[in-house]
Amino acid sequence: MAIPPERLRKYVGLHRKYAGGQLINLNPIQRGGILTEEARRVIVEFGDGYSVCDWCPAKTPRLDMIRRPPIMEFMEDLAEFLGMDVARVVTRCREAKFIAFRMLGKPGDYVVVDSLAHYSTYLAAELAGLRVKEVPHGGYPEFRVDIEAYAEKIEEVKRETGKPPVLAVLTHVDYMYGNLNDAARVAEICHEHDVPLLLNAAYTAGVMPVDGRKLGVDILVSSGHKSWAASAPTGILAATHEMAEKILRHPRIQGDWSGRTFKVKELALLGCTVMGAPLVTLMASFPAVVERVQHWGDEVKKARYLVEQVERIEGTKQLGVKPKEHTLIHIESKGLYRVSQSHKRRGFFLYDELKKRKIVGIQPGLTKHFKLNTYGLSWGQVKYVAESFLEIAEKYGLSIG
Amino acid sequence: MAIPPERLRKYVGLHRKYAGGQLINLNPIQRGGILTEEARRVIVEFGDGYSVCDWCPAKTPRLDMIRRPPIMEFMEDLAEFLGMDVARVVTRCREAKFIAFRMLGKPGDYVVVDSLAHYSTYLAAELAGLRVKEVPHGGYPEFRVDIEAYAEKIEEVKRETGKPPVLAVLTHVDYMYGNLNDAARVAEICHEHDVPLLLNAAYTAGVMPVDGRKLGVDILVSSGHKSWAASAPTGILAATHEMAEKILRHPRIQGDWSGRTFKVKELALLGCTVMGAPLVTLMASFPAVVERVQHWGDEVKKARYLVEQVERIEGTKQLGVKPKEHTLIHIESKGLYRVSQSHKRRGFFLYDELKKRKIVGIQPGLTKHFKLNTYGLSWGQVKYVAESFLEIAEKYGLSIG
Repeated sequence: MAIPPERLRKYVGLHRKYAGGQLINLNPIQRGGILTEEARRVIVEFGDGYSVCDWCPAKTPRLDMIRRPPIMEFMEDLAEFLGMDVARVVTRCREAKFIAFRMLGKPGDYVVVDSLAHYSTYLAAELAGLRVKEVPHGGYPEFRVDIEAYAEKIEEVKRETGKPPVLAVLTHVDYMYGNLNDAARVAEICHEHDVPLLLNAAYTAGVMPVDGRKLGVDILVSSGHKSWAASAPTGILAATHEMAEKILRHPRIQGDWSGRTFKVKELALLGCTVMGAPLVTLMASFPAVVERVQHWGDEVKKARYLVEQVERIEGTKQLGVKPKEHTLIHIESKGLYRVSQSHKRRGFFLYDELKKRKIVGIQPGLTKHFKLNTYGLSWGQVKYVAESFLEIAEKYGLSIG
Repeated sequence: MAIPPERLRKYVGLHRKYAGGQLINLNPIQRGGILTEEARRVIVEFGDGYSVCDWCPAKTPRLDMIRRPPIMEFMEDLAEFLGMDVARVVTRCREAKFIAFRMLGKPGDYVVVDSLAHYSTYLAAELAGLRVKEVPHGGYPEFRVDIEAYAEKIEEVKRETGKPPVLAVLTHVDYMYGNLNDAARVAEICHEHDVPLLLNAAYTAGVMPVDGRKLGVDILVSSGHKSWAASAPTGILAATHEMAEKILRHPRIQGDWSGRTFKVKELALLGCTVMGAPLVTLMASFPAVVERVQHWGDEVKKARYLVEQVERIEGTKQLGVKPKEHTLIHIESKGLYRVSQSHKRRGFFLYDELKKRKIVGIQPGLTKHFKLNTYGLSWGQVKYVAESFLEIAEKYGLSIG
């Protein structure tokens, strides 16, 4: 159908206001996904749809079999970097979870998940026909997941269904409070109960050192656009050999008339996954990612520094476990909230004030609870953000401790 | 785990040999996915992971609700362009098929598919737990799908299971012979039997005019990286209101301890899909795509011209329905095959000879049967390709008719 030309004008010269420049973007989901210069260089060259498929091997036509560019080698290096046996790039971390759920479970089966799991964990479970049993957290102000309760929840599933859950899921660092969970301990509990563990490392692998073998996890998933300096959509699915055999099994379907089979493919990946530009950004950024995880200690120091400074503002404190072990920070500020109550822009005053100072990424309108992420900011930028918060607080008459 | 620096060197300066330049790339899957200049301009700016999420609405946090960049408007324009009610961008055409299968079927249910369906149609069915019933094709040399047999196959499913298939699938143009199927007729047959029809327009929508409403299809899927001048991975899932209600239904899962629900999301999309660069290339190329489908007639003329010329080579003919109604061409050449039998490079001689002439994209090693695609080539380029084939044939002593 014809679309009137005036309606097409909006697609010409699409522009991202927040791209690069002098802005400091604190958006909690965005810090780890900013491209490296190397990735920026290759994205255009591999922009065309099937840009990585020029050298797809005729006998094993599959993305992870391509050696030009070195995709096959990348999957191997990726697995090694994560301390896992096998790795694949899938379209999203949530798809990686879905694949694990779908291939390990049958409709009606249970997965045990931490109650701060990302929403996509729940959706992946429902799409795979599974039920969830949640491991509680301790609530305000720490919201600490009660990891010892994995044992109890596994037993609950056994009592209810006569068999253990098909999988347990632990969110390594949660999206809400940025709490880091003890994956090794959860793996231990799960294995004592003969339940494999999937670690959702969307906020950890790619920014901090994560060694799946050392942690003892069976499946490890992560997000390239969240934590690996890659374009969306890129998910990472890594597994032990034992798990990979199940979740990457080959298709069994056969055409009833044609007799066609598709045994070289991997069923749950639907064949090939991220055939172009985003995959290549992930690969191009990989050397920088391998390097950057070594500096995680300094990243955590910056996060703690910012918390320390922002907590000087009257009625303001960090929620989640203290001190921070991750750069995703959840702030509760009764002080800033009080200001918003009498400000003509209400909660938007904080957004306005930060924006004036070229700081963006905190959700416009929020003051009482808001999230931010300091990952990858320089010390100079972190100090500037801290000073800006204090300046804004002072401007509106809040006391600084 | 540490990766030795020498193993990381291969990721520095990744280069695509076949990108741009003077090469003519005839790769059958690649012609429709070459980026427009407009898409090339925006891909870097939106390269960062969550680049389109700066203005995600707080109350309805979902990709298709974002208005800066105009993603919400794009979904509407996309639906209108395809003559459908609702459209979503998903990660791949194959995922769009999976979503339809998963949301409409229950394990063990049947889908009726044409026997030239892409392999991913079968994998999507298996992943959704469905069985396939194939509609035969007529075999050599036309390989014409017997579309009247949709009726019979639907009846067969009814007899076998007591109920109609949950869906029928028609591949609008198949990947193997580039045959264009009469979607309107198949829709008519399916609807007479109360079976909805999914049209796989991976090779058609985006390069030729496709109006789902006129054709009477219930679901229409396509591939951005195959036919919409977009980066991978981008799939298109479009549907009538009636179908969209089912396939885009909201999640029902609830945390058993937390009580959390996720009703604003769309279950089978797992929330958000293509959050960045590829989506923006699809949007940036959209005005050019809306325009280019008008020139489909000329594209078909170029394909027919090339066939006519190449068929002048001794023992060489186009397979599939004649004359061509699509630019994907399957050539059978007993002549070139005979040459390969006594050539020291065997079948690779054709690749070598074409490569010398700066023509690439035909699978190296093939001579007896090979595929190519003329879409988007200029008349000058098509003539040059035709002359090159004739020149190579003559060089090896094949007669030209």
